[in-house]
Amino acid sequence: MSGLPAADAPRFLRACRGEPVDRTPIWVMRQAGRYLPEYREVRSRTTFLGLCKTPELAAEVTVQPVRRFGVDAGIIFSDILVPVEAMGMPLVFDEGPHLPEPIKGQVDVDKLGVPDPAEKMGFVLDAIRIVRREIPSTPLIGFAGAPFTLASYMIEGGGSRNFEKTKVFMYEHSRTWRTLLSKLARTVILHLRAQVEAGCAAVQIFDSWAGSLSRDDYLSFALPYTIEIIDGMKDTGVPVIVFAKGVHACWDELSRSGADVLGVDWTSSLDQVASAVAGRVSLQGNLDPLTLFGPIERIERQVQRILNEARAARGHIFNLGHGILPETPVEHMAALVETVRREGRSRVPKDLG
Amino acid sequence: MSGLPAADAPRFLRACRGEPVDRTPIWVMRQAGRYLPEYREVRSRTTFLGLCKTPELAAEVTVQPVRRFGVDAGIIFSDILVPVEAMGMPLVFDEGPHLPEPIKGQVDVDKLGVPDPAEKMGFVLDAIRIVRREIPSTPLIGFAGAPFTLASYMIEGGGSRNFEKTKVFMYEHSRTWRTLLSKLARTVILHLRAQVEAGCAAVQIFDSWAGSLSRDDYLSFALPYTIEIIDGMKDTGVPVIVFAKGVHACWDELSRSGADVLGVDWTSSLDQVASAVAGRVSLQGNLDPLTLFGPIERIERQVQRILNEARAARGHIFNLGHGILPETPVEHMAALVETVRREGRSRVPKDLG
Repeated sequence: MSGLPAADAPRFLRACRGEPVDRTPIWVMRQAGRYLPEYREVRSRTTFLGLCKTPELAAEVTVQPVRRFGVDAGIIFSDILVPVEAMGMPLVFDEGPHLPEPIKGQVDVDKLGVPDPAEKMGFVLDAIRIVRREIPSTPLIGFAGAPFTLASYMIEGGGSRNFEKTKVFMYEHSRTWRTLLSKLARTVILHLRAQVEAGCAAVQIFDSWAGSLSRDDYLSFALPYTIEIIDGMKDTGVPVIVFAKGVHACWDELSRSGADVLGVDWTSSLDQVASAVAGRVSLQGNLDPLTLFGPIERIERQVQRILNEARAARGHIFNLGHGILPETPVEHMAALVETVRREGRSRVPKDLG
Repeated sequence: MSGLPAADAPRFLRACRGEPVDRTPIWVMRQAGRYLPEYREVRSRTTFLGLCKTPELAAEVTVQPVRRFGVDAGIIFSDILVPVEAMGMPLVFDEGPHLPEPIKGQVDVDKLGVPDPAEKMGFVLDAIRIVRREIPSTPLIGFAGAPFTLASYMIEGGGSRNFEKTKVFMYEHSRTWRTLLSKLARTVILHLRAQVEAGCAAVQIFDSWAGSLSRDDYLSFALPYTIEIIDGMKDTGVPVIVFAKGVHACWDELSRSGADVLGVDWTSSLDQVASAVAGRVSLQGNLDPLTLFGPIERIERQVQRILNEARAARGHIFNLGHGILPETPVEHMAALVETVRREGRSRVPKDLG
């Protein structure tokens, strides 16, 4: 993808780079998910991890929303904890993810490997290759969890409300924390690079729980490792999207991280964020996923509002401010994509006026 | 309290109003709570609601942290759902609050009363009178939930993750939503005014779940009703503190709401907020409650950081960025109060230099 001349690149990639587009591109986090009947059908044949690890099925659900809605990008179906399992930690999914042997100290961190993606996560790469054959003209996004979010799962042993164990670990064992996060950063770099090599045209780093941190803690304990990953991706030439959900006090630092695009959740306002990032990055977001539960006319008005607020951004990729929820009516998702397709803004380079 | 000449007023009240103080005052949200052994002892004698409704016991736990730590303000022990029960909705506490007959539409809203506080919530007022006799020189804070947060409990029937029912209600039944929130605002005004009359020197409005809303929705569906309450308190002369947890994109509007103080959670930075509110209000906050689980030297450094960041504020009341957690070591809470007492800044009026 990165070899394409800029003028022929799909609008999603052009928006990532802040280049002119005919209209605002759109894709939706968790677009391959439970709200789709065809996803539920495939999912009923296997477990969640089984779906992640069967390339044909993972590819099939990845392609489903692209075919149904004509969104401007696909995102490979997988889970952010796949590399964590590959590092050597047992992983099961019941209600949510569960890591029955959580990290308690240096000994546990020392035991973790930095896995070879082809050897340990080949199923993700195979799925990517299938998707590329099936929908060759739609850019495919690869992804990984940010080191902070991955570490929080590894230390808590699953989801958490207050991230008590994670923060105590960070505060009391700072050196071990830094060893762990460096190891995670190296693992993620290899994993993302392999995804690009298999055919991904962009990558997104999900820092789903970073919003639990103070500005001070985020800058000290989390962001440096995300930057390590961004640096490790630079020579691939693919755009890097960073979605640090809930982090709203660090736009300046995030916009100087080397990321091409910042994801914005629905609690921030794109015009305010655009002013804070001062044209250094494009923005992605940020409709409240719950908006899709309300009337269609309201969805249309909210899309208009967001398109207006995004005018000040260097580039804009429409998305929800978080993953689409399982109970979302499919026809409301369709209405969202239709509205962005109809109302999305064209951007021309300022110097060509 | 409001009758005192300003020069004799306690530092907590002076900081609320942006007046000179000898040092930064401190109190802590949920300071009367489960982390205290003497609280657990009293709590073991009755249920949670029983504790709220027995004036002698509610007063006793209110006074406990003031006596133990010498914090600069007390806050009456009660629950934000007490007025909701008084409006006519059954309320039980098991793990958390549970409202077995949630609001589904206009009929349910019409059935709700606007209760006379003396008649239906006299136990809160009695507890306030006892506390005032026990610790007459410490300002006592009265409180209530903001209409948005109360409505979310009433519609969800308890706590919630995504506030699905609340938002769908808001979007689909906007008129009924507005009737409900007006009724809540009137109830809260009467309840807060009664608390002031019984002896409270300031009031705090908790909008614990407002952070789930987009800026657009917060300004349209929530803030107007909080402003209604602030307006309804103006002639009492007591400072009004608004804590809209997680709302970080509306500092300008909040600072023009008529509130005297804005609570700030730990994910925002006081220097950034101070610059956004431009001296119109004082700020309260904002140590991450989890910091108290870490080493004491780190608590001291974080206190210093927050005191420094708060220099730009009109006035600063030290607090956590959310309620203190039940598992907090008591000696770490003591260290926090000690550190603020030792390091808290004095402020002199600029024109007296």
